[in-house]
Amino acid sequence: MAADNEAREGGSLVSKRVRDVLEGTGESWTRRMFELGRRLRAQGGGPVFDLSLGNPSLEPPPAFVAALRELVEDPTPGRHRYMTNAGFPEVRAFVAERESARFGLAIDADDVVLSVGAAGGLAIVLRALTDPGDEVVVPAPYFSEYDHYCRHADVRLVAAETGDDFALDVEAIERVLSPRTRIVLLNSPNNPTGAIYGARDLSRLADVLTGHATQDGRPPVLVEDAPYRDLVYDGSVPASAMTVYPHTIHVTSHSKDLGLAGERIGYAVISPRLADRRTVARALAYCNRTLGFVNAPALMQRVLPKVLGRPDGRVDVGVYARRARRLRAGLVGLGFAVPEPRAGFFLFPRLPDAVVARTPEGQAADVAFAERLVARRCIVVPGSAFGVENHLRLSVATDDAAIDGALAAIEAELATR
Amino acid sequence: MAADNEAREGGSLVSKRVRDVLEGTGESWTRRMFELGRRLRAQGGGPVFDLSLGNPSLEPPPAFVAALRELVEDPTPGRHRYMTNAGFPEVRAFVAERESARFGLAIDADDVVLSVGAAGGLAIVLRALTDPGDEVVVPAPYFSEYDHYCRHADVRLVAAETGDDFALDVEAIERVLSPRTRIVLLNSPNNPTGAIYGARDLSRLADVLTGHATQDGRPPVLVEDAPYRDLVYDGSVPASAMTVYPHTIHVTSHSKDLGLAGERIGYAVISPRLADRRTVARALAYCNRTLGFVNAPALMQRVLPKVLGRPDGRVDVGVYARRARRLRAGLVGLGFAVPEPRAGFFLFPRLPDAVVARTPEGQAADVAFAERLVARRCIVVPGSAFGVENHLRLSVATDDAAIDGALAAIEAELATR
Repeated sequence: MAADNEAREGGSLVSKRVRDVLEGTGESWTRRMFELGRRLRAQGGGPVFDLSLGNPSLEPPPAFVAALRELVEDPTPGRHRYMTNAGFPEVRAFVAERESARFGLAIDADDVVLSVGAAGGLAIVLRALTDPGDEVVVPAPYFSEYDHYCRHADVRLVAAETGDDFALDVEAIERVLSPRTRIVLLNSPNNPTGAIYGARDLSRLADVLTGHATQDGRPPVLVEDAPYRDLVYDGSVPASAMTVYPHTIHVTSHSKDLGLAGERIGYAVISPRLADRRTVARALAYCNRTLGFVNAPALMQRVLPKVLGRPDGRVDVGVYARRARRLRAGLVGLGFAVPEPRAGFFLFPRLPDAVVARTPEGQAADVAFAERLVARRCIVVPGSAFGVENHLRLSVATDDAAIDGALAAIEAELATR
Repeated sequence: MAADNEAREGGSLVSKRVRDVLEGTGESWTRRMFELGRRLRAQGGGPVFDLSLGNPSLEPPPAFVAALRELVEDPTPGRHRYMTNAGFPEVRAFVAERESARFGLAIDADDVVLSVGAAGGLAIVLRALTDPGDEVVVPAPYFSEYDHYCRHADVRLVAAETGDDFALDVEAIERVLSPRTRIVLLNSPNNPTGAIYGARDLSRLADVLTGHATQDGRPPVLVEDAPYRDLVYDGSVPASAMTVYPHTIHVTSHSKDLGLAGERIGYAVISPRLADRRTVARALAYCNRTLGFVNAPALMQRVLPKVLGRPDGRVDVGVYARRARRLRAGLVGLGFAVPEPRAGFFLFPRLPDAVVARTPEGQAADVAFAERLVARRCIVVPGSAFGVENHLRLSVATDDAAIDGALAAIEAELATR
C-alpha cells in the first residue's frame, strides 16, 4: 500500500516525545518485569516468583462487596452520569470530614477533588501548579513513574539524596532548591523503600521552604503522594506535611488499602491554609476535566462513604507486615542490608558488597543481578529504576510461596559465584 | 501568616498556563452554563429548563444492572487489581471481535486500548502521535473541549469550515492542511450539530490525505471521535474512515449508548492497516499508563462483554430521537434554521436573522441571547463556544418538560423585541 510505504520511509507515526521514551528505558522497568513475569507464567513450566509489582494481593474487604451490592440495587436515577468535575458533592463532603479529623484542619468539600487514582491526582496537580521549565524536587529513591509524570508536564525532576535508612535529608533538599522550584514531591510511606518520613524532618523542611525565595515570590508547594498511608504495619498514622506547612496538597488513593488499584479512585486534598486555595481547587477541577479524566469513576466515588471507617472497611495490613518481615529475615540472612520495613508493599535491599564488587565494569550490579534472576524464574526490579543503584525492589504484595521461591532463587544466584 | 502574604504578593499558586484559561473563557461555556443551572436549581423558585449538557438522561439499560450484579458476586480473585495498561486481554479481544465485524477489518486485541472514556482515549492518542507545534485539523463547529485537549498536548487546533447542514467540506479541510498537519480529528455523529459525515466525503478526504505531503513524510492520521455512533436515530451505522483510510484511529466510549458518562469507559481502536500499528499500540498503552490514567476502570471493562450486543444492552435511542424532533419542530416554528437531527444529543439551530440584526455591535448575538435566556431560567450554550457564531447548542438529553419550557422561554425572549 502506497501510504504504508510512505509512512515507513517517514518513520514511525509515534511522536518524537513518546518514541524517545519507548526506545530508551522509559518503558518502566517495573512494567517490563511485570510483563516478563506474565509471559513466563503463560509459557508454563512451573511457578514464577514474581516480586515486581505493587499489585494488591489482598482482595477488597467484605465491606466493599456489601457496598457494591447496595449501590447496584439503588434505584436513584442519574448516579452513573457526569457530575461536577471535582466529584459528587456529598462524597467530597464525606472525604473532607475524614481528612479534617485526620489532620486537625478545617478542610471543606471544596478543598477535595476526587481523581482517577493517586496517579490522576498527581497529573492534575502537576499541570495546575507548574509551567514548562519549572522544577520538582523529589527525594531518591523515588517511584519511577515520577520521571514520566514530570516529562508530560514539561518540568524537570530534581532528585535529592536521602539519609540513613532512606530518611528525609532536609539539607540535601535545601541544596537542590532553586528559584524555579515549584513543587517538592514527597512519597511517604515510600515506594520503593517502605520508609516513613518523620514529623521532625517534615517540620524542618517546612521551615526551609518557608524561607526559600523563588523567582516570582510564590512559595514552593509541598505535594504529598500517600497511597500507602493506611498500610502502616503498626497501625499508626504517618506524619504529614499537612499539619506543618500551609502550602501543601495531599494526594492519595484507595488502590492499596481497599485493594482497588484497577478501579482508579483517589483524591487530592488542598490544605485550607494554602494561599489561593479556591483558585487552586478550580484549577484542579479544570485539569481533571480537560486532561481526559473528566471525573473519577462515579460508582467508585459512591463506594467510599459506605466503606471507609467501617471496622471491615480495610484490608488486613498484618498480612503484608508478616510477609515483609519474612522476606527481610531471608534477605538479611543472605547478606543484604535492609532497613526494618514499616509500611506498604516494598523492601529495597542493598546488594551484598561482594556482588557489587564482582560485577563487570560498565554494568549496573542491580540490573545485571535482576536479569540473572529471570533465568531462575524470579522477577524483581533493579534499584536503578528508582534512581539508586546496587539495590533491588521486592514487592510483598504476593504470597508466601513466591517470597520463599524468590529467596531460594536469590540464594542460588549468590552461590554461583 | 507570612507565607500566605508572600504568596499573595507573588500571585496565584496556579500555573500561568492554567491561569490564562481560568481567567479567559476557557472555563468551558458548557460547564459554566451547567453549573449556572445547578445553582439556579439549588436556589429553588420553580423548574429550570436546562438544555446545556450532554449528560445522558436515560438510565443504563437493564442488562447493565444484571451484569453488575453478576460481577459483584463473582469470587474470582484479582479482578479489581492493576492489569496490563491497555486493559484486560479478554475484554480487548471481545472489543476487537465486535469492531472487526463493524468495520470489516481484521482487528485484533493488540489494536485495542481501553481508555478512561473517549476523552481519555483522545488524550492518549494526541500525546502518542503529536509533538509540540504540530497541527490538528478539526471541522467547525466542534466540541469545545478539543481546544483544551490540544492546548495540553501543546499542538495547534486548526479549524476548517463545514458545508450546508454542517456536512464535511473536504476542500475546506484541504485548504488548511499544512506540512505540520499530524492529525485530522473528526467527530461524527457530531457534537454540537448532530451531523453524520457521509461515506463519499470520507473517501474523498482519504484521497486528499493520502496525497498530502507532510514535512517529514509521515501521513496525517485520521482520528475519529465517535461516542454517539450508536445513537443514530434511524438505527443505521454511521460511515467511518476506518474502512477508507489506513492511518485511522477510532475512539469511542459507552458514556452515551449505555448511559455511563460518569463511569469513564471507552477505547481507542487502531486500524490494522495503519503503518506501524504495533508501535502505536505500545505508545498508547504507555500514555495510558503515564498520563495518570494507568488503565480504564476495571469493573467497567468487565461489564462490556456482558452487555454489548445483547438485545437489552443499549438505551432506547427512540426517546432521544422523539425529543430531538419535538425540539426541532418548536424551533423551526419560532424562525430558527435547524437541519433534520440525525443522531446524538444536540441540535445546533441558527438564530433568526432578525435577532442577529438587532444585536448591538461588538456583541456576539448567540452569547447575548443565551445570557438573556438565563433570566428566563433557560440554560443553553452559545454557538461561539463551538467556533461558530449566531447559533445555539441545545441538548435533548433532558425531558419533555425541559424542552417545552425552553421553547416557551425562547418564544418569550423573541417576543420582547
